[in-house]
Amino acid sequence: MVRVLVNISYQGSQFLGFQIQNNGRTVQQQFEKILKRMHKRHVRIHPSSRTDRGVHAIEQYFHFDSELNILPDQWQYAMNRALPDDIFVKHVSFVDASFHCRYDCVGKTYRYKVYQSPNKNPFECGLKAHVPESLDFEKMSQAASLFMGTHDFTGFCSQKTEVESKVRTLYESRIEKTEYGFDYVVTGSGFLYNMVRVLVAFLIGVGKEKFPPESVPQLLKAKDRNKVPFTAPAEGLYLEHIYLSPEALISDFGEDIKIYQKKSTQNR
Amino acid sequence: MVRVLVNISYQGSQFLGFQIQNNGRTVQQQFEKILKRMHKRHVRIHPSSRTDRGVHAIEQYFHFDSELNILPDQWQYAMNRALPDDIFVKHVSFVDASFHCRYDCVGKTYRYKVYQSPNKNPFECGLKAHVPESLDFEKMSQAASLFMGTHDFTGFCSQKTEVESKVRTLYESRIEKTEYGFDYVVTGSGFLYNMVRVLVAFLIGVGKEKFPPESVPQLLKAKDRNKVPFTAPAEGLYLEHIYLSPEALISDFGEDIKIYQKKSTQNR
Repeated sequence: MVRVLVNISYQGSQFLGFQIQNNGRTVQQQFEKILKRMHKRHVRIHPSSRTDRGVHAIEQYFHFDSELNILPDQWQYAMNRALPDDIFVKHVSFVDASFHCRYDCVGKTYRYKVYQSPNKNPFECGLKAHVPESLDFEKMSQAASLFMGTHDFTGFCSQKTEVESKVRTLYESRIEKTEYGFDYVVTGSGFLYNMVRVLVAFLIGVGKEKFPPESVPQLLKAKDRNKVPFTAPAEGLYLEHIYLSPEALISDFGEDIKIYQKKSTQNR
Repeated sequence: MVRVLVNISYQGSQFLGFQIQNNGRTVQQQFEKILKRMHKRHVRIHPSSRTDRGVHAIEQYFHFDSELNILPDQWQYAMNRALPDDIFVKHVSFVDASFHCRYDCVGKTYRYKVYQSPNKNPFECGLKAHVPESLDFEKMSQAASLFMGTHDFTGFCSQKTEVESKVRTLYESRIEKTEYGFDYVVTGSGFLYNMVRVLVAFLIGVGKEKFPPESVPQLLKAKDRNKVPFTAPAEGLYLEHIYLSPEALISDFGEDIKIYQKKSTQNR
């Protein structure tokens, strides 16, 4: 038996999300269908992150265990041949049986893409979120940077979030100006349900001068989701990078950061 | 009663095409649903072109007749409010009752988008066609230019095409190099079923040196579809421009071109 680690990307607009469901097209379903055909038995895949309906992945990992005698490059080739055009296998490797995509994930980077124009552009539909108004990027950048560090994000996630602790650490939280809008780039130890989309909605509010950047510490302290009332649409959200080792995280953000190991905890 | 002319764009990947069908999402269905709600009766729309499943439109026109007392800007606003994000109304105007979107269409421009890379990119899925091989653009440009003028395109359209004459005039037929591939841009008096997609498949064949550019005159003369055996996928095809008057066509291509009036003929 060998543990197979798969690095994939997908366009989420035509998926009901990553996780398998009774009805409808999901990323997990596409892979488990192929693996069942190859193994003549059900093979479960374990992702680093379960992306929601409409959310994209530039990078996502999952693993599964196989008794088949297939080399990594052959796995990649076989899966890409059988997959639809909106999923692509970028890389396959073998890992130690103790490795687990979810528990060994020590950090994730998300990118949220926004385009600005007076009118909606049908060719951005499903791929970027639309904001017609002009935005104050300096204020948005200020506010974004105030989320860095370790905070209780109760006020910035879905009220449906069911986890013991809503404390998370952000290693990076910044606005990147693009040709027709901006990207919000955020790396953290983990993210609560809808957290990135709520952060983006709030930052757009800052850009429209509905909230001053200085309100961030108070809003974090208030832990009241009703004070930050919007959630940005799923279509702009891209899972961009998965950190599968503390070394990778330290290499990008320095020795001083606090690393959270998840071997024993559940984490979305 | 006033005749309303509507200029729209749409991303075709989630439509079964323009024309209404018994089941499934089409562009015509989206508009007729809105117009029925507004008029309390069925209102038929008449497009310049009926794009196929998966084909996009940067510009498309349709007209309908209305007894409602609504100004053009209000029409645009009302329709955009009710439409899904993959269709956008760019402009609305009133036209003479003798104007007809299909019969007054004297020319169309299509753009076909291809990206080249060793692997498929899931984020181009539905928006551009993929070619992994490198291509000889000089030969493709040579071949493309040989389609200009008036020819019988029997060998370069679907064998299912049911029209009396397969003679069409191309005013422009050229390869435009892009950052990661090329666009094929073609303007003509009209196009046969699948004609642009067959031309593109052939031109890619020329780029791969499967056909020499000099074979174009022979292949046109042969009128044998089996000699040009491929059809490029719908996802790369964009209806880019509609010419609704001879003057517009002359302004882009000069006094010398032959203009085909369609008042009395049917034309896809």
